[in-house]
Amino acid sequence: MNPRAGILVTGTEVLTGIITDRNGPWLSERLIEIGVDTEVIQIVGDRPDDLLAALEFMRSQGVALIVTSGGLGPTADDLTAEVVGRFAGREMVLDGRLEERIAEILRPMMTRWPSLDPGAIRASNRKQAVIPRGATVLDPVGTAPGLVVPPEDGAGPTVVVLPGPPRELHPMWRMAAQTDALQAAIAGAPTYRHGIARLFGIPESEIANTLREAEAAGLSLDGLEVTTCLRRGEIEVSIRYEPPSQEAYDKLMGFIKSRHGDTLFSEDGSTIDEQVATMLTGHRIAVAESSTGGMLAARLTDRPGASAYFMGGLIVYSNEAKVSLAGVDPELIERFGAVSGEVAIALAQGAIERLNADIGVGITGIAGPDGGSEDKPVGTVCFSVKLRDGPDITRTARLPGGRADVRDRSTTVALHLVRRLLRGETDVQLPGTRDRAPRLSAERP
Amino acid sequence: MNPRAGILVTGTEVLTGIITDRNGPWLSERLIEIGVDTEVIQIVGDRPDDLLAALEFMRSQGVALIVTSGGLGPTADDLTAEVVGRFAGREMVLDGRLEERIAEILRPMMTRWPSLDPGAIRASNRKQAVIPRGATVLDPVGTAPGLVVPPEDGAGPTVVVLPGPPRELHPMWRMAAQTDALQAAIAGAPTYRHGIARLFGIPESEIANTLREAEAAGLSLDGLEVTTCLRRGEIEVSIRYEPPSQEAYDKLMGFIKSRHGDTLFSEDGSTIDEQVATMLTGHRIAVAESSTGGMLAARLTDRPGASAYFMGGLIVYSNEAKVSLAGVDPELIERFGAVSGEVAIALAQGAIERLNADIGVGITGIAGPDGGSEDKPVGTVCFSVKLRDGPDITRTARLPGGRADVRDRSTTVALHLVRRLLRGETDVQLPGTRDRAPRLSAERP
Repeated sequence: MNPRAGILVTGTEVLTGIITDRNGPWLSERLIEIGVDTEVIQIVGDRPDDLLAALEFMRSQGVALIVTSGGLGPTADDLTAEVVGRFAGREMVLDGRLEERIAEILRPMMTRWPSLDPGAIRASNRKQAVIPRGATVLDPVGTAPGLVVPPEDGAGPTVVVLPGPPRELHPMWRMAAQTDALQAAIAGAPTYRHGIARLFGIPESEIANTLREAEAAGLSLDGLEVTTCLRRGEIEVSIRYEPPSQEAYDKLMGFIKSRHGDTLFSEDGSTIDEQVATMLTGHRIAVAESSTGGMLAARLTDRPGASAYFMGGLIVYSNEAKVSLAGVDPELIERFGAVSGEVAIALAQGAIERLNADIGVGITGIAGPDGGSEDKPVGTVCFSVKLRDGPDITRTARLPGGRADVRDRSTTVALHLVRRLLRGETDVQLPGTRDRAPRLSAERP
Repeated sequence: MNPRAGILVTGTEVLTGIITDRNGPWLSERLIEIGVDTEVIQIVGDRPDDLLAALEFMRSQGVALIVTSGGLGPTADDLTAEVVGRFAGREMVLDGRLEERIAEILRPMMTRWPSLDPGAIRASNRKQAVIPRGATVLDPVGTAPGLVVPPEDGAGPTVVVLPGPPRELHPMWRMAAQTDALQAAIAGAPTYRHGIARLFGIPESEIANTLREAEAAGLSLDGLEVTTCLRRGEIEVSIRYEPPSQEAYDKLMGFIKSRHGDTLFSEDGSTIDEQVATMLTGHRIAVAESSTGGMLAARLTDRPGASAYFMGGLIVYSNEAKVSLAGVDPELIERFGAVSGEVAIALAQGAIERLNADIGVGITGIAGPDGGSEDKPVGTVCFSVKLRDGPDITRTARLPGGRADVRDRSTTVALHLVRRLLRGETDVQLPGTRDRAPRLSAERP
């Protein structure tokens, strides 16, 4: 059995729902990577009694490790270090080297804001340097140091104390994972390997089927922990295994590939966003969006360096804009409707021309809640991706969910169509949809 | 002292970080509304022992109420009802009326998918109708019923059992809150009123100052629980109070208004998105976005009905697109740089002209991580909002944080500038920024 851990998230703003905690899930995923199973995540406010009760509960559950987030700031209600010291039965002592280190971090700040009271700064600086005797110090990323605190008598959980801001917690967790103190606490934890397969265009139940068929075909899945989940319209198959199960893993991946080679797009953890960004090197892409209202462009420009291939886009929410801005023939709208494959192609072509691009994407759909018809219910979205003077992939999808889901899912579909186009796979069935419409481009008059 | 509650979120996918829990924070906010303070949120997997240990921990903490989410489905690992029955010391019994009700809900589904095994459906249906004796049943919104389970001997916490999907949990919580069983558990809880003030354009510390000054000026804040937090670049001041403190609340709100009338934009809970949508009635707005790459347009079209006022937009990521698409004079870019107030105004004007709008918004900035200079560091963003043939508000901001923060914060700044423009407040200082740049429009050659 793997060592088990508890995660303790502190902060009244998290407990009262003002802030949604992201550290708990993140730490849980990191613990899995080092072979530790999370038994419980607890969120408590800033009261020392509540912190202590939560720590005691985790100890009573027999966990080997506790990871805390938050409560390490310079103010009086930042009490985690002290409470953890009490919990571990360790005296609190001033760490002179740490005090100097924090002072060093604060120095440039004090130069910038000379109006700050140096005495008050020194006092809070000193507070942060008082730590449980025998704790391993994690160098601050912000101003707060982290701690790895072993139990005083060698029995009971080791506590890793991390600051709350994710940009500090993430790198400091990685430091903590390297410490002797943490390694000792989870000694005997298996070394795991971890693989991810991502698929787009099949329902989750198909993967469940494939796993059953793999077993029926004689593959042993015993050493593999397989989790499947749906994220933003894609299926993620996550497989954790110990090194001796490498062969079983390779065989299962091979089996999945043989069954789903057409929809399996990532075996190395890469995302569709990363893949498309790489494939766009040397290209110039432009978009014309109606129902997604800029969300595809926003997603394409999420990544630094997007300016190398992303030229720009047209947001053509009104029919008037489709005509005047993207140059869509009003007769197409009249004849086929604004939500049609014909208009989607014209949008892709308009994006190419207006932005002098070599790849264009057109999206037009009904995101809802209103505007649906029997013929084109809410969730109907037409996509076209097109190369300048080259082939296009034009498809109509029926996407599930509410307005926000339909719009977000649309950006995923569009990215997958761009990937297909750049791989020259223009005859694919429309993935990720319930309704496999005929190629509308072939029907054009 | 208010009654206290614990929230227990179940589900291995939540515990392992695959899904981020949103029910805990949501329930915590709802509990505050009915005068109940959340003491702890716990997340555990689907193992009955872990569920029971978490429930026992909450009982040991003396909470009056426990709210659980998840584990109410028809499959064998959905065990919450049974574990809660054991916890409350209540026998599990088949509720015939409930069994019939669930069958009724499933009937249309079985007609649609005739291949489903009716025997298996009936069995899982029956499982969901087995409940702790004496529990109050909450009518299913999906297929799973909720429960309010009082303690067998009248001592200890009452447990509200809700399904995991938020679209089911939300309405069923409201049903639960009305039950006699829940009301009895929190008898004596104060009836709270709740007010929210939203401000934009001052640091959080200013509000802390104002609260101190209010007390110094003789206002009593005793009956008011004031929480302030920063959300997407705005300050939210949330005030909870009992009816006898209405006068104190009114006085504090009056004080905040007298101090911050220029930055207080909402006293009724309305968001900037809602306010701008309302103010845009009868208008036609268009955007031209560089650094935000479509995020402002996406935000404006998040709301159903946006087509009444949102015409469309230009995403002008490249300088080439700024010129060819938005009609920016290349000399402006040459002379002032692509990130300048001059270019921002030209973008706003270009949006107006190209989309035949009466309000235009231009955004151009450096989102990072690269592209900053000493003069224009990462986070420098220029905004212009303009009426056709009318005045403009053009400002340069230095926004904090990483690329994603800068881009998201930019959309908030832009919405606030639109609000100011539509209120005729064109001489405002630039809110939400550290650097109050001069009005660049006045400097144009």
